[in-house]
Amino acid sequence: MAPESFDAVDVIRTKRDGGELSHAQIDWIIDAYTRGQVGDEQMAALNMAIFLNGMTRAEIARWTQAMIDSGETMSFATLSKPTTDKHSTGGVGDKITLPLGPLVSAFGVAVPQLSGRGLGHTGGTLDKLEAIPGWQADVPNDRMMQILEDSGAVVAAAGAGLAPADKKLYALRDITSTVDSIPLIASSIMSKKIAEGTAALVLDVKVGSGAFMKDLDTARELARTMVDLGTDAGVNTRALITDMTTPLGRCIGNSLEVRESVEVLAGGGPADIIELTCELARNMLDLAGVHDADVEAALKDGRAMDSWKKMIAAQGGDPDAPLPVAPHTHDVLAEHDGYLTELDALAVGVGSWRLGAGRARKEDPVQATAGIELHAVLGDKVTRGQKLMTLHTETPERFDRALESVLPGITIGETAPAARTLIHDRIS
Amino acid sequence: MAPESFDAVDVIRTKRDGGELSHAQIDWIIDAYTRGQVGDEQMAALNMAIFLNGMTRAEIARWTQAMIDSGETMSFATLSKPTTDKHSTGGVGDKITLPLGPLVSAFGVAVPQLSGRGLGHTGGTLDKLEAIPGWQADVPNDRMMQILEDSGAVVAAAGAGLAPADKKLYALRDITSTVDSIPLIASSIMSKKIAEGTAALVLDVKVGSGAFMKDLDTARELARTMVDLGTDAGVNTRALITDMTTPLGRCIGNSLEVRESVEVLAGGGPADIIELTCELARNMLDLAGVHDADVEAALKDGRAMDSWKKMIAAQGGDPDAPLPVAPHTHDVLAEHDGYLTELDALAVGVGSWRLGAGRARKEDPVQATAGIELHAVLGDKVTRGQKLMTLHTETPERFDRALESVLPGITIGETAPAARTLIHDRIS
Repeated sequence: MAPESFDAVDVIRTKRDGGELSHAQIDWIIDAYTRGQVGDEQMAALNMAIFLNGMTRAEIARWTQAMIDSGETMSFATLSKPTTDKHSTGGVGDKITLPLGPLVSAFGVAVPQLSGRGLGHTGGTLDKLEAIPGWQADVPNDRMMQILEDSGAVVAAAGAGLAPADKKLYALRDITSTVDSIPLIASSIMSKKIAEGTAALVLDVKVGSGAFMKDLDTARELARTMVDLGTDAGVNTRALITDMTTPLGRCIGNSLEVRESVEVLAGGGPADIIELTCELARNMLDLAGVHDADVEAALKDGRAMDSWKKMIAAQGGDPDAPLPVAPHTHDVLAEHDGYLTELDALAVGVGSWRLGAGRARKEDPVQATAGIELHAVLGDKVTRGQKLMTLHTETPERFDRALESVLPGITIGETAPAARTLIHDRIS
Repeated sequence: MAPESFDAVDVIRTKRDGGELSHAQIDWIIDAYTRGQVGDEQMAALNMAIFLNGMTRAEIARWTQAMIDSGETMSFATLSKPTTDKHSTGGVGDKITLPLGPLVSAFGVAVPQLSGRGLGHTGGTLDKLEAIPGWQADVPNDRMMQILEDSGAVVAAAGAGLAPADKKLYALRDITSTVDSIPLIASSIMSKKIAEGTAALVLDVKVGSGAFMKDLDTARELARTMVDLGTDAGVNTRALITDMTTPLGRCIGNSLEVRESVEVLAGGGPADIIELTCELARNMLDLAGVHDADVEAALKDGRAMDSWKKMIAAQGGDPDAPLPVAPHTHDVLAEHDGYLTELDALAVGVGSWRLGAGRARKEDPVQATAGIELHAVLGDKVTRGQKLMTLHTETPERFDRALESVLPGITIGETAPAARTLIHDRIS
């Protein structure tokens, strides 16, 4: 049977007037857009109508499925072990994927993490790992299966054949102010994750100044939407809602974040990174059928570190090579005594980006060593003249603009702030 | 001073979030779009945001001015007489421009009507006049000035240099379901009319099934918006809101409408055409400083007909040549006795379009002779078997689809309907 055909003008009008798109309309427009038969201008108008008028749960599910159907899908069914994956909506200093994959795979579960590069103030996992000498993001599918079978964890660049409709739509949303829409964000993330073929998925939905979602209600709505999409598609899905008002850990920037991840894998590192890594690992393992795993022990006793070394070496990296260090640094000092009552995630993220750690356009290069190292974190007591943070870069002319972003994000007050809540909610 | 520059993404976001665009943002985006620096996909997203979130009076005025500034403007200041113009938002059987220009010009006022071709179910004035053997729509500017000085009325194709931003935007709105927006309709119409340089303007805003505006409140809002725009731009502007639930007059289709117009200019013709032509003429003359003109007399005593003949001849037409007649006709008969309680404008307009009188795409040709001739109009008493209308076409295979549109628009009831209100309101 030939698929039903529609007029894009009618599809746009339906959503413009607050109506619900039919399954056939959604299938048709995603397919026609992917093949170039519906133009960017028509899809842009439809996206804005979706942004302003929303989509029902049934529409979002079908929109997601249509994007999956626009390309290839992967399958790990031939592996001898279960698969489990994690996706973060993106935050400042969020290097959790680096210790997490090796930690989970130490329990005999495969973790095939297909990641992207960073855009804007949030870093990309591939950019971080590329700071390790020799490490390669591109892994052919057959090699990926072999690594997963042998060592259990892979972080690789997502193939261009997965959800091509999403790639085209994402680029369009970026230039038409239609990014921050829950139906469009949820379907974009979940179409990729479902096409990637994982059996279980834990979502880390960030909330706060450094995240896409600025408030808890919106973050909960996004998490609920994505958990429903995953569940409906047969993927065992849960979500955590976690804090992104201040950076995660003490290092922001590619090489700096690898260093901190290795500290955690060696049994040390900042408490918030350890807590979030362990909580995500327990959930991923639980969904994969490994219950009550003592993940803290695997960080302490070297099992996670062994996995890490295998994972890095399997992709050409040297896990024992020294990490590159920036040639130029600048210290920010405390102006008076008190408590660090604010250390804004967005201010620090944009500062690190401006130092060279991130990119404004997809084709821009990033500096491996640029970033920010925090010597004090939210709630710490500080004294006048104490080093609060060190800025790192390969291009010292960038310090001024980075400081313009960072300094207004630092507040020193007289009384200690309330303790940070790292994990706000769990949705399953 | 160099004009301020913006990022299209920020401009779209402002309107998306319900904000007001600044004058500088509007000037920038219309100019950048006209020059191709802002793409169709960005303008489509902005148009949808305008459609759903609206524009303030100040935004609409600036948007209109920016479209005027995107191209050339005309001026009739060197003429020895005042100018006055009329614009109709379009309806079925609306041939009023044809008798109106000659009638008004008979009182010593210049009427430079720059018109378009029809698209969809409403006919275009140029298509109608082209049914007259020899008549040409393209008139160079210097020749137009000479005709206006000599005989006083011109109907010509609008030059491509007037408001090019509007032409580009209109084509985009057509394929992105963003046509029926009052700010966008009002700015589109008024940018062209103001650029055309008339000193006075009467708007005929149609309301009813055969018009863009389906209800009186929306029609009033459009009329008020356009009158404000004209007034703010120094054009003496008024609007009438007139009925378009049933066709105007008894003829729909190009050659048929010229025939009916000539009947009116000869002192006969349908009452509704005479009433609306005279009301519009009085308003146009009044705005041009000619008060209390006896326009009915000018239709009866041949002055308007003399103007018509001069106007047609000045553009190469032969006003005395026989008009072309369709080779194929089909009569629709009354199925029972009663009163014609419904004769739907849209049904008849689409029927005439399907017979060949209109076009679906800009580049399509139209048939000069296709259309519909009404033998009974709304409220008439009819008897079973009586001819209600005759369909005309050059391509008889079109009768079936035309009848599919026309027949459901005809209702014969037992009691006479309320008398039609032709002119609903006057706005100045």
